[in-house]
Amino acid sequence: MDPGRLKTLLERVRAGELDIDEAMRELGDLPFRDLGFANVDHHRALRGGFPEVVLGLGKTAEQIAAIVAELARGGVNVLATRVDAQKAAHVLAAVPGARYEEGARAIVVEQQPIAETGRGTVLVVSAGTSDLPIAEEAALTARLGGSKVERLWDVGVAGLHRLLHRRQLLESAEVIVVVAGMEGALPSVVKGLVSRPVIAVPTSIGYGASFNGIAALLGMLNSCASGVVVVNIDNGFGAGYAAALMNRKRE
Amino acid sequence: MDPGRLKTLLERVRAGELDIDEAMRELGDLPFRDLGFANVDHHRALRGGFPEVVLGLGKTAEQIAAIVAELARGGVNVLATRVDAQKAAHVLAAVPGARYEEGARAIVVEQQPIAETGRGTVLVVSAGTSDLPIAEEAALTARLGGSKVERLWDVGVAGLHRLLHRRQLLESAEVIVVVAGMEGALPSVVKGLVSRPVIAVPTSIGYGASFNGIAALLGMLNSCASGVVVVNIDNGFGAGYAAALMNRKRE
Amino acid sequence: MDPGRLKTLLERVRAGELDIDEAMRELGDLPFRDLGFANVDHHRALRGGFPEVVLGLGKTAEQIAAIVAELARGGVNVLATRVDAQKAAHVLAAVPGARYEEGARAIVVEQQPIAETGRGTVLVVSAGTSDLPIAEEAALTARLGGSKVERLWDVGVAGLHRLLHRRQLLESAEVIVVVAGMEGALPSVVKGLVSRPVIAVPTSIGYGASFNGIAALLGMLNSCASGVVVVNIDNGFGAGYAAALMNRKRE
Amino acid sequence: MDPGRLKTLLERVRAGELDIDEAMRELGDLPFRDLGFANVDHHRALRGGFPEVVLGLGKTAEQIAAIVAELARGGVNVLATRVDAQKAAHVLAAVPGARYEEGARAIVVEQQPIAETGRGTVLVVSAGTSDLPIAEEAALTARLGGSKVERLWDVGVAGLHRLLHRRQLLESAEVIVVVAGMEGALPSVVKGLVSRPVIAVPTSIGYGASFNGIAALLGMLNSCASGVVVVNIDNGFGAGYAAALMNRKRE
Amino acid sequence: MDPGRLKTLLERVRAGELDIDEAMRELGDLPFRDLGFANVDHHRALRGGFPEVVLGLGKTAEQIAAIVAELARGGVNVLATRVDAQKAAHVLAAVPGARYEEGARAIVVEQQPIAETGRGTVLVVSAGTSDLPIAEEAALTARLGGSKVERLWDVGVAGLHRLLHRRQLLESAEVIVVVAGMEGALPSVVKGLVSRPVIAVPTSIGYGASFNGIAALLGMLNSCASGVVVVNIDNGFGAGYAAALMNRKRE
Amino acid sequence: MDPGRLKTLLERVRAGELDIDEAMRELGDLPFRDLGFANVDHHRALRGGFPEVVLGLGKTAEQIAAIVAELARGGVNVLATRVDAQKAAHVLAAVPGARYEEGARAIVVEQQPIAETGRGTVLVVSAGTSDLPIAEEAALTARLGGSKVERLWDVGVAGLHRLLHRRQLLESAEVIVVVAGMEGALPSVVKGLVSRPVIAVPTSIGYGASFNGIAALLGMLNSCASGVVVVNIDNGFGAGYAAALMNRKRE
Amino acid sequence: MDPGRLKTLLERVRAGELDIDEAMRELGDLPFRDLGFANVDHHRALRGGFPEVVLGLGKTAEQIAAIVAELARGGVNVLATRVDAQKAAHVLAAVPGARYEEGARAIVVEQQPIAETGRGTVLVVSAGTSDLPIAEEAALTARLGGSKVERLWDVGVAGLHRLLHRRQLLESAEVIVVVAGMEGALPSVVKGLVSRPVIAVPTSIGYGASFNGIAALLGMLNSCASGVVVVNIDNGFGAGYAAALMNRKRE
Amino acid sequence: MDPGRLKTLLERVRAGELDIDEAMRELGDLPFRDLGFANVDHHRALRGGFPEVVLGLGKTAEQIAAIVAELARGGVNVLATRVDAQKAAHVLAAVPGARYEEGARAIVVEQQPIAETGRGTVLVVSAGTSDLPIAEEAALTARLGGSKVERLWDVGVAGLHRLLHRRQLLESAEVIVVVAGMEGALPSVVKGLVSRPVIAVPTSIGYGASFNGIAALLGMLNSCASGVVVVNIDNGFGAGYAAALMNRKRE
Repeated sequence: MDPGRLKTLLERVRAGELDIDEAMRELGDLPFRDLGFANVDHHRALRGGFPEVVLGLGKTAEQIAAIVAELARGGVNVLATRVDAQKAAHVLAAVPGARYEEGARAIVVEQQPIAETGRGTVLVVSAGTSDLPIAEEAALTARLGGSKVERLWDVGVAGLHRLLHRRQLLESAEVIVVVAGMEGALPSVVKGLVSRPVIAVPTSIGYGASFNGIAALLGMLNSCASGVVVVNIDNGFGAGYAAALMNRKRE
Repeated sequence: MDPGRLKTLLERVRAGELDIDEAMRELGDLPFRDLGFANVDHHRALRGGFPEVVLGLGKTAEQIAAIVAELARGGVNVLATRVDAQKAAHVLAAVPGARYEEGARAIVVEQQPIAETGRGTVLVVSAGTSDLPIAEEAALTARLGGSKVERLWDVGVAGLHRLLHRRQLLESAEVIVVVAGMEGALPSVVKGLVSRPVIAVPTSIGYGASFNGIAALLGMLNSCASGVVVVNIDNGFGAGYAAALMNRKRE
Repeated sequence: MDPGRLKTLLERVRAGELDIDEAMRELGDLPFRDLGFANVDHHRALRGGFPEVVLGLGKTAEQIAAIVAELARGGVNVLATRVDAQKAAHVLAAVPGARYEEGARAIVVEQQPIAETGRGTVLVVSAGTSDLPIAEEAALTARLGGSKVERLWDVGVAGLHRLLHRRQLLESAEVIVVVAGMEGALPSVVKGLVSRPVIAVPTSIGYGASFNGIAALLGMLNSCASGVVVVNIDNGFGAGYAAALMNRKRE
Repeated sequence: MDPGRLKTLLERVRAGELDIDEAMRELGDLPFRDLGFANVDHHRALRGGFPEVVLGLGKTAEQIAAIVAELARGGVNVLATRVDAQKAAHVLAAVPGARYEEGARAIVVEQQPIAETGRGTVLVVSAGTSDLPIAEEAALTARLGGSKVERLWDVGVAGLHRLLHRRQLLESAEVIVVVAGMEGALPSVVKGLVSRPVIAVPTSIGYGASFNGIAALLGMLNSCASGVVVVNIDNGFGAGYAAALMNRKRE
Repeated sequence: MDPGRLKTLLERVRAGELDIDEAMRELGDLPFRDLGFANVDHHRALRGGFPEVVLGLGKTAEQIAAIVAELARGGVNVLATRVDAQKAAHVLAAVPGARYEEGARAIVVEQQPIAETGRGTVLVVSAGTSDLPIAEEAALTARLGGSKVERLWDVGVAGLHRLLHRRQLLESAEVIVVVAGMEGALPSVVKGLVSRPVIAVPTSIGYGASFNGIAALLGMLNSCASGVVVVNIDNGFGAGYAAALMNRKRE
Repeated sequence: MDPGRLKTLLERVRAGELDIDEAMRELGDLPFRDLGFANVDHHRALRGGFPEVVLGLGKTAEQIAAIVAELARGGVNVLATRVDAQKAAHVLAAVPGARYEEGARAIVVEQQPIAETGRGTVLVVSAGTSDLPIAEEAALTARLGGSKVERLWDVGVAGLHRLLHRRQLLESAEVIVVVAGMEGALPSVVKGLVSRPVIAVPTSIGYGASFNGIAALLGMLNSCASGVVVVNIDNGFGAGYAAALMNRKRE
Repeated sequence: MDPGRLKTLLERVRAGELDIDEAMRELGDLPFRDLGFANVDHHRALRGGFPEVVLGLGKTAEQIAAIVAELARGGVNVLATRVDAQKAAHVLAAVPGARYEEGARAIVVEQQPIAETGRGTVLVVSAGTSDLPIAEEAALTARLGGSKVERLWDVGVAGLHRLLHRRQLLESAEVIVVVAGMEGALPSVVKGLVSRPVIAVPTSIGYGASFNGIAALLGMLNSCASGVVVVNIDNGFGAGYAAALMNRKRE
Repeated sequence: MDPGRLKTLLERVRAGELDIDEAMRELGDLPFRDLGFANVDHHRALRGGFPEVVLGLGKTAEQIAAIVAELARGGVNVLATRVDAQKAAHVLAAVPGARYEEGARAIVVEQQPIAETGRGTVLVVSAGTSDLPIAEEAALTARLGGSKVERLWDVGVAGLHRLLHRRQLLESAEVIVVVAGMEGALPSVVKGLVSRPVIAVPTSIGYGASFNGIAALLGMLNSCASGVVVVNIDNGFGAGYAAALMNRKRE
């Protein structure tokens, strides 16, 4: 209930125009329904510069197209993650203005210019080439959320020199997202080299006792480097989202 | 190898005082040993304003006292986590200048003034009274890391009104740490209310199918609220450390 | 053994028409075989107004059609759950009178009018759109079991306002079924708002560390809200069945 | 905000006694803080006839005594579960009016008469003698919640006759709580015999591959008998609470 | 209801001494209560020559003593398993006629001569010295169940020669119980050498990834040797019981 | 080394026809290669009346056909388990004399008459219709191993009367195999009714928290009925094999 | 930075051709970028005689072909593991000089002669025929790494004689790789027979409680034979690589 | 059967002193009983220079003392691992010649000089100070097994510089044992730096989602660095044993 409406109501009570019982009935509806954060505008504010998001995983091409189209109707940006190329073709045919980011396996409908909201850059680091789709998903999400993004690919711990090489780049980032499968050791190593916040993303890359990413997840949760935080297995979106949030200038 | 030493070396080469082969031998030792980040000063820089840390869990009072004393010798601040009252008494007797933060079950040796490094405040939120030691550990760590800290205790999801009440406080924080055991639902709810970064700390509070915090951990990793990041079970220290890092002003 | 038959037997003994040895032989068969609950009528009574049920999961269209047809022969209502649209087409072609409830992925043969047996209504609440098939399965089962059913869709904990909005509806139900995947936090939040019994249904919605619904299951079993009870992952049928049972008027 | 207070406020506005700005300030605080369900009275209404509850597990005798005393101050009934005899002695010495229910390992402070709120009786059934503390906890909780309670002990599935014997008793109950460890098969067998709602409580009784109750928990979640609902391992309190809720007459 | 009683009842009916209604009332109670297998005699028959059993694990010395004394009152043999020496001293002091089998960590009250019921012998084989308490528990149980028992200790798979040595003994047994911890490979090797039934008992011996016997349990369940059957971790009693049952002559 | 060959060797030594060094060389090869149990005849003796067995699971139709044909060449009986109808058609076309047992999803090449080796009958009991393929596999294996087999289908614990009905049949068997999925409670109930050995077979029937048969497996391992032994999930073959072995007359 | 370049730099400093500041700038870049081990040559030295490796699992035929072709461009040997026959056909068509090792499910591009680097032979032992692809992968890898390889197939623990037979062969090897699924007992038995290092490879062969190789993995980690080391499930490559490394002559 | 005895037997046959039937009887006993590897001498040869070993974990001081004394009677070296200081005092008092290696928590009875059997050195590397007891156990075992041992302590991945520093030392070793808890990343990093065999030892150091070493174990099994092999959690002994074996010169 905005102050204007509440003031009018009280003025009408004082003026005797509004019966006290009627006023009470109207006010009785107030809790929850008209709370600031409950209305659409507030929700939009919460979402900030981020696009609306659809998780494509486990949905048919038809379902994805329908939801993306529905969300896009409001004129906002829309991001659909985990969409393979075949489904993407269907969605692109059905939703005008949609584009496919193949590397990130994501569909984007970009109807609003992206506001530059970051204090610095988000750096996305990945261990192996198989981790790239998740890393690109993180990078795309952070970008759509208003951050400048840099990438550092293929710097797994079995070849440390590739990483040590780029210490400058690591330290210059505002927030670092580190994507790795198998033993998931890269975030510890990266965090040991810099004083920046590190968000670790375990991927399901591996086989046998990798248990679809559990090994990497546990490795990251048990990092011996202080200050590593973790998201769900293959959750590039969540990491990119959190990184952009952490990087965001406070207005 | 500090610039001074390198310059001297080159000048001696130019002056013909130093044989090229000898110069090469000396430079050959350079990689790794004298890399900027390898020496103590750099390590100190990486650590920034954070104290040295000892995990008390699984160590005897004697071991904790010895390590804390050793670290404190350097004049830095020291934090020992997961120390019960009985062990703490022993440590305090052995280490001059140490104090016990009972709520956080931590020992602190504060030899340096804490530099105020935060852009804003770190808010620590906890679900139940049993989660308090972990929540206080997070708060203490963030404080020692240079952040102003606020607390919001006992706002579990089974009594939402206590949380909704404090939406202002939630939104005003720069970073929010949310500590919860059992089903670990509180971070999702908090993240749904605000646009701030949320670090979730699962605790081992619960019994039966809580599996010492696994239920809470999984709940947090699977949060339906975008942008929640997670640390290890009962890792209040890690959450506080990451929060202070995210809150840190860039010099 | 019904009283009539037993009485006749004893009368024939007294009348000397039945030899004591013969009588003993006949009575010796009595335990188990003729116990009230062992015969078909009793079984029917146990089942009450509920339909016969077939779990379609893991069965071929041919097998489902055969079992449904067999059960339907007795003139009772039949419910086949977890039947996809393709299999359903086959079953409908094979079983006269069968209809497909697409939302609930279920086949119904409704040959008997549904007796209204409920004291009040069963409310089915779901967190996300992906949870809908399980939620609709619960709603359909409760309805076929004689309860009036209401639905409240898409009120996940990351957007609390949508739920708070409907507190009246929640409290007015006799029993509430809450369906949620991912972190499974919704039942705790709902139970915290009302004094009604809550049956929680974890779904396999999610990925990575959701472990096909284990995260949601554990979350619900560890609910910090007193009085939440839980069924198996994706078991919408079981929840709807239990809800209708709890709602049932005692004759 | 209770209607009386709201009415008075509006009347004072109309009477010109209360400035509109002041009224707005007071009403502005209304959302969340004074929502019907947020104040203590409403919370009491939600709790209904149930006592305040403390989980004694993992708390010291001193902590339990302090919390129980604090809660009891309000004049309400208090229940502390999972308190062993030694701790109980301490609590009883510290809290006037507290009594120890040894069978249920629980402390009760009964300051209010228990309102009889049940439509029928709650029957608590247990498989083995080792399951008794959990079964008694369920029975005690249901009783404190206003239900008449009956008990049926030691009717494990390896000796079916003891159970079959008491079919009458089973069917006569309004709600049945079934407590079992090891393979947790009893709820399935009980549910197969009656048309009443069954709440299954797995216990941690067993060894080896019982995994502290996981075997029983999984057995109950996978019950082949329709309509069994489950609570956490050893959660006798939760089962008794839910049973009393299901049994409660609607005013 | 034993035949004698039933005959008398029918004779009294025929003789007109018993009213038909009264007879029906008496017979009406018959199902379940007086079923052959429900009375004590039948239960005794089911139990056959086996002693009454108490699982000492998790019980206090007082509780064990009380239960053993209670069971022994009936004049039957009693076996209490998993009783350590300290508790045993208490029980022996409290229960006249009880003796402690230290190797098997079991208390025995042997009040009846053991009937020799076996067709052949039960051979108990163990892998390591740490497995002995469980192996002795199996041997003792089989012996109390009426079987002759032979023992073959310390023939782990890392020293095959000790086992190959005794092939004659292996083949001569009627049933073989094989007890092993760690990788649990011994039952496969034994079964590969003989054509006798093999009951495998995993023990909790090991550490780290033995997970308290899970490794051994899984190894045994996945035996590549056809016909190995398995019992719970550390369940020497169950294996000895099953072995004696398999070895039992049919009367 | 057969006695004849050894005798000849020694005679040639005595006759001076064979040099002692040559004799030693020949005897030096003896261990392992010519050990009684190492030759084919002994292996055949170990296998007894059982057929050669191929696990079809995870093999192509071509692979199964090739292995079955190879084994059948020796004139023995062959059993291939876990072969679906489509693959079976291929195998039958390729292997003369092979037949498909559809109920057991098995291929049999029966080239030898089955020797009747049992002391009594093997009874196979199954809980639900979905468990039938595994139950039939057990029955077929026991039959091919020389035992008379009886079947008792669809007697799950949710409808106890169907089981109680057949107590006579249960007790008359020499060995009972009990096949059940979901909560796996049937073996406990069966064992509670009879004094015969019970082999429990968990099946992967179920969904969600059945974890492909883990729930049933754990339930059976934790059976409260003494003397239940267990095989791997879906291992009908192993249970049938063990049952025939236990039932075998000793020559 | 190779010695030549460094020498030139210093000589130019001495000659006054290079300004000291410029020299320092150039040297400042030195750490990490030009460290000996960071350049390609060093990496090649680390890799030694081993081929470049691609894990085919989870990659499309197109992706495998592209990576193999890329790596082969350098003239080195390339190994692609876990490539099925269908994908292999595609890769062979696309990459000149590639061959398919069907038994090992691997593609090899052999452009360099294999240097014989072993002190002795690597023996690969496998338990069952289904383990062969993994065993062949190990054998192929060891061979490409410069070791002579011998094979011993189908010597599972259920038929010990086949293994005992070949003790000579076992002891003669420098390193033994043992590949086994199901209960994974073979490495323990082999290690018990010889004094050579044993590398155990668990395979995913099995079903039910084999949990895709976890049972075998745990069995191997818990081996009672001292000195068994283990690699990931199905990791024939890793075992062959480690074996060749252990067998390698030190230059 | 040693060659001497066999030769004598054959000579007595040739000389006619031994009847052929008697000779056959004697030889018939030969398999298994007198196989070369079955007698004590062979077993000693297998064990090579290694001491006899006792796992102290889970044994009382009395048991350890008794077993160590028994083994030491033969004049060999004896190693008892996992013995805490208190138990060690007891053992030292009871066994003459025993000494306590406190760092390795092990008791050693060194009665034989250690034969130097290594080709090079075994290097033991540890990540954190809490990993030291396990690392020292590995070092001690390798030393007792005849290898020269070097140590590199406290080079965890969060501070890479300490490790990079010592690349020379790493590469100079013949075999490297790497001991690490928490995320277990150190072996991957070490293996990425050198071309030597690496044996990884996960430790139970950590808390929460380290699950007593499972996280480290999984990390090591999934190492992205080729050729890392792994032993059980906390199995320093096994790693040291395997390292000495790999390092052993072949006579």
